[in-house]
Amino acid sequence: MRSRTGGWTRAPRRGIRDPQRRASTGGTVNPRYVHGYDQREAQRLQDQASTLVDLLHADTAYPDGHTVLEAGCGVGAQTVPLARNSPKALVTAVDVSGGSLQEARKAVHAAGLENVTFRQADIFHLPFAPGSFDHVFVCFVLEHLPSPVEALRTLKQVVKPGGTLTVIEGDHGSAYFHPDSALARKAIQCLVELQARAGGNARVGRALYPLLQAAGFTEVHVSPRMVYADPSKPDLVEGFTRKTFTAMIQGVRTPSVAHGLMNEQDFDRGIADLYRTAEADGVFCYTFFKAVARRGPATT
Amino acid sequence: MRSRTGGWTRAPRRGIRDPQRRASTGGTVNPRYVHGYDQREAQRLQDQASTLVDLLHADTAYPDGHTVLEAGCGVGAQTVPLARNSPKALVTAVDVSGGSLQEARKAVHAAGLENVTFRQADIFHLPFAPGSFDHVFVCFVLEHLPSPVEALRTLKQVVKPGGTLTVIEGDHGSAYFHPDSALARKAIQCLVELQARAGGNARVGRALYPLLQAAGFTEVHVSPRMVYADPSKPDLVEGFTRKTFTAMIQGVRTPSVAHGLMNEQDFDRGIADLYRTAEADGVFCYTFFKAVARRGPATT
Repeated sequence: MRSRTGGWTRAPRRGIRDPQRRASTGGTVNPRYVHGYDQREAQRLQDQASTLVDLLHADTAYPDGHTVLEAGCGVGAQTVPLARNSPKALVTAVDVSGGSLQEARKAVHAAGLENVTFRQADIFHLPFAPGSFDHVFVCFVLEHLPSPVEALRTLKQVVKPGGTLTVIEGDHGSAYFHPDSALARKAIQCLVELQARAGGNARVGRALYPLLQAAGFTEVHVSPRMVYADPSKPDLVEGFTRKTFTAMIQGVRTPSVAHGLMNEQDFDRGIADLYRTAEADGVFCYTFFKAVARRGPATT
Repeated sequence: MRSRTGGWTRAPRRGIRDPQRRASTGGTVNPRYVHGYDQREAQRLQDQASTLVDLLHADTAYPDGHTVLEAGCGVGAQTVPLARNSPKALVTAVDVSGGSLQEARKAVHAAGLENVTFRQADIFHLPFAPGSFDHVFVCFVLEHLPSPVEALRTLKQVVKPGGTLTVIEGDHGSAYFHPDSALARKAIQCLVELQARAGGNARVGRALYPLLQAAGFTEVHVSPRMVYADPSKPDLVEGFTRKTFTAMIQGVRTPSVAHGLMNEQDFDRGIADLYRTAEADGVFCYTFFKAVARRGPATT
């Protein structure tokens, strides 16, 4: 059985059918993800986006009239802030999942945004001519791919020469906390391991610079976005430490136990220790990485 | 045999004789440090300060005429930027080591600074009346102490009610890199372990908030200072990844091997892997933590 794992978000909402995996993944829903499509998961995604939106999006604003491809928009958690921050840019959001696109449409409509066009498509087979977009935006996608450089090369084709690519990814190896806990670290490592077995890389954030270089982008600039949550920031403790990160790790309990990575008791103690870092003397740290790079002139 | 370990800087230059350790450490030089006093070590400290000075110091400037105690000034690596950024504040720099103070005097003189007074003293027995200073500044000190809360309480006494304490510490658990390497991580863990055996905590940075709260400070504000070094930042790669962090880990080779924490071959491979992260496709991440807190009104 292929393990179903994921990182920050549901792979299906990312519009990805990895070419190396397509034979086994088949249809429009990528099975390599462990979280369900239930209400709790939807809430987690929402909590995540509302907590992290400023940290991840505040410095992305595209000029009026510019065209932007969001590759792998999923349920629209990042599409809303993306389109809101660039209200006169023309956003095309693609995802491989029709169901996710429907959710994304609702979210964008509910936000009163009218500058987004949706289209069902696979990142590796985009229905766009080369150089169709001024910019490409991709968030929490590379973490799921065995061949992130190949994906970046494909995306580069649809960017105009001189246009930009923006990538945001997390890195689960960047998580540390107080009080420290070996079981909490081990529970996090379960997700890293499950994601690796599914062909992804939950620690891809730190590697954005070499990946973008390898894909032939120029002017690569990476800026880390550290989440530091101590009791003076109760919203972040609640929204990130508890409802986003710990909930995400808690979500892989079943496959972690099924794959023999941890027993139930230890896993639950690890989760309890993660929640412990959200208490009155706890601290939680995590870092996202945001990269902006340019497609060079026509020769590249 | 007590292991001799250290973190960013030589413990002796910190003016610390921990009360719980005094019986065994005896004289003015704290033996719990592994680096020698040789030229290479002096260069490492210098490289460190010149690389990190903006990151750590840029937002610390004290008003004209205010009095500032630097507790544990060592050879003056932090004293120079501290005094330079607050040229009309009156800095008193103390250290337990007369030899370090002599170096610090030279460094401050060479920098053309005239607002620093030096005094040989032990942090736990400061020769100052309660409330003597408007501000206290302490950098890379808590990491060496078995009782950091007690140290902070002691320092709080010499701050005027309403005055501030600024603390800067590293956190070796915050180090991660690309390419990842289990041996490199293990070599770093050697320093963490040696420092722990000596009563210190090389991962104290993440705990500044609860430590300052426990010591009774108010308005505690912690800001992480992440060093992100990729090939687009060659000065940082050279100054931090190579000459500061990796050199520091390399410096504990002998005690790491002597204590059986790693064998020589593995340790050397770990160091080679750390240098590997400074190459053309490498990335290195590390986070310092800077805390500013206030001593409450006279009642606290």
